[in-house]
Amino acid sequence: MINSEYVEMLEHKDIIFELAAYANQRRAEVGPENVFDFSLGGPSVPPPIEVHQALQELIEEGDISVMHRYTPEGGLFETKSMIAKDLNTRFGSSFTADNIFMTCAANASLSHAMRAVAVPGEKIMTFAPCFSEYEYYVKGAGCELVIVPADTETLNINFDEAWKMLDENVAAVLINSPNNPSGKVYDTETIKKLAELLTMKSAEYGKAIYLISDEPYREIVFSDTDSPFISNYYDNTIVCYSFSKSLSLPGERIGYVAVNPKADNADLLVSMFAQISRTSGHNGAPVIWQRVLAKILPCTSDLSVYETNANLLYNALTEYGFEVVKPGGSFYMMPKIPGGDLDAFMKKALDNDIIVVPGDGFMCPGHFRLAYCVPTERVERSLERFKNLL
Amino acid sequence: MINSEYVEMLEHKDIIFELAAYANQRRAEVGPENVFDFSLGGPSVPPPIEVHQALQELIEEGDISVMHRYTPEGGLFETKSMIAKDLNTRFGSSFTADNIFMTCAANASLSHAMRAVAVPGEKIMTFAPCFSEYEYYVKGAGCELVIVPADTETLNINFDEAWKMLDENVAAVLINSPNNPSGKVYDTETIKKLAELLTMKSAEYGKAIYLISDEPYREIVFSDTDSPFISNYYDNTIVCYSFSKSLSLPGERIGYVAVNPKADNADLLVSMFAQISRTSGHNGAPVIWQRVLAKILPCTSDLSVYETNANLLYNALTEYGFEVVKPGGSFYMMPKIPGGDLDAFMKKALDNDIIVVPGDGFMCPGHFRLAYCVPTERVERSLERFKNLL
Repeated sequence: MINSEYVEMLEHKDIIFELAAYANQRRAEVGPENVFDFSLGGPSVPPPIEVHQALQELIEEGDISVMHRYTPEGGLFETKSMIAKDLNTRFGSSFTADNIFMTCAANASLSHAMRAVAVPGEKIMTFAPCFSEYEYYVKGAGCELVIVPADTETLNINFDEAWKMLDENVAAVLINSPNNPSGKVYDTETIKKLAELLTMKSAEYGKAIYLISDEPYREIVFSDTDSPFISNYYDNTIVCYSFSKSLSLPGERIGYVAVNPKADNADLLVSMFAQISRTSGHNGAPVIWQRVLAKILPCTSDLSVYETNANLLYNALTEYGFEVVKPGGSFYMMPKIPGGDLDAFMKKALDNDIIVVPGDGFMCPGHFRLAYCVPTERVERSLERFKNLL
Repeated sequence: MINSEYVEMLEHKDIIFELAAYANQRRAEVGPENVFDFSLGGPSVPPPIEVHQALQELIEEGDISVMHRYTPEGGLFETKSMIAKDLNTRFGSSFTADNIFMTCAANASLSHAMRAVAVPGEKIMTFAPCFSEYEYYVKGAGCELVIVPADTETLNINFDEAWKMLDENVAAVLINSPNNPSGKVYDTETIKKLAELLTMKSAEYGKAIYLISDEPYREIVFSDTDSPFISNYYDNTIVCYSFSKSLSLPGERIGYVAVNPKADNADLLVSMFAQISRTSGHNGAPVIWQRVLAKILPCTSDLSVYETNANLLYNALTEYGFEVVKPGGSFYMMPKIPGGDLDAFMKKALDNDIIVVPGDGFMCPGHFRLAYCVPTERVERSLERFKNLL
């Protein structure tokens, strides 16, 4: 029979899609240049030219009869080696190709990590504000998402609550830094405190509590931001990555899971990923993108526009009187709703053709998410309108 | 805690991978030209040149700043439209883009179809001989795979058993024609009988029993073979497709699910696929391949070598005295084990550097699978050795 679980999900329509539809309507009415759409989290800068140069080389020099074949389980050795080398060079880690498993980007990476270290019925804990899709990713693994309430003043991890909530049914803790939706980058002190929490609780409960680190924004970190490589601070870490943001390739579905080689059962976990693929409908990542990565890493898009936009918005909004925690990375920030009345604020914003997303869906009510992955010119012209919202 | 379900799966190592490892060892020992490896089911012909021509056009004429972006839910309209048009032109069906959902190839297609029309705990029924991975695909959907025993003389559907076994807990029936591992193509009479079974049982149990048609070999059908388009004979059909075989792109992970527009809840099912993606770790199919498909369909690789190889092997083996059901398509056939002693036969085969796969894993003991997706020259030189196996 039709599976009602998925029918019910349809009834919880994503507000971001509704806002996008409204934005499209307004673009038709007032012209696209007059709609200030800060609702969608897709990269606004093009992929680096090296991406197409690498494709060109593959077409010209590669052997068509072998280059599109099945890869070994987990992906191409040369791609995984290049990723390991890049991580080790930048972060002093000690990954090898054997610690890495290529996936169809972030959702697939998280899907594999969660299924490996949590059994259906267990809890996975994360920290608000958090990505609204986590609920569904965790549900797909048969687990329950437990969300530690936000520290709404700092948007940092609320450790008081985390210590209380991390009970013996929590199999893994999921973090996302740089953060969607807040732009927060957890600093070294925060990561050390988190590692201490996980170490103490692992000892108390007599089991390894894994840290699943969702890092698609890792390469988008702003000047003077302390941005530790999380896996270096806690051995039982599984790094989930996507090239969607760093190379502006969100439609191409390419990423990886990397298990810290010092993690408990590190080798077993990587072997398990291949089994998880079989049962979840994932059978490897597109090989053409694995070949491109092997050629161009550690190349990224020119990501500087996100910092330019962040500074423009942060400086203007705080000058106008908005309360905003300064973002350290990603392409999001999360100001407080002036006056606190969401409906009134959203109406006023839409009246000004400013499209933003309420914080409620990110478990951070009283705030709104600004996705500033838009042309800088658009940000500049939006500033006067933000003044109207106060 | 580590999820033991996947650890246990590791203990059931795939015999095909073990045979592949043995084949590699023998290649090193006696030279690759002297190992006759019929164990692996990967395309042996290159993709058509149109694939690289289309990539070249995309690089030269496409706008790099938009071509790699997220696609709409379910994929690019132009790709889905082209697929619908191609199906309708060839088979007289009436698909539109709205009936189609792009996926990361066959495993993903089946994963979506099964989760949509079966609830965990229900049964999914298929017919032996069948693909060995179905067990894991069905397990991933939380269901139980029920396998109708093979009619070992014809390798056709065993309808007597099917009528008995299709009880009210069966949510869907899964078929694969042209078939892996047998090469059998179910003819029009067979598909009509299957449709009758499903129609009668749907009426008896007061529910729609869906037919999930796994068709990655649809384009590999040999001369004078009656190969009906299955969806035309039963409205409640979900077509699962992959371009891995028809375009020789198995490493690129591109395929689709198509719901017969006359199916019960046809539109709802397609909407549900997007929800299934969210929970299963699948977030769309690589957009570059969607763009290539839109340019080149209905182009395929030159698939004629598979028929050439099938004829060479079928004629020689039957002449030598093997009992073989003549394959109608795919790149497999399934002879009986001469004498019936699997271990003795496998030893003799390996002594002759002939690598084949026992039928047991395909729920067809007493047979072995020959995957003749190898160069014709290799097939020709293998024939004398098959004679030694009798």
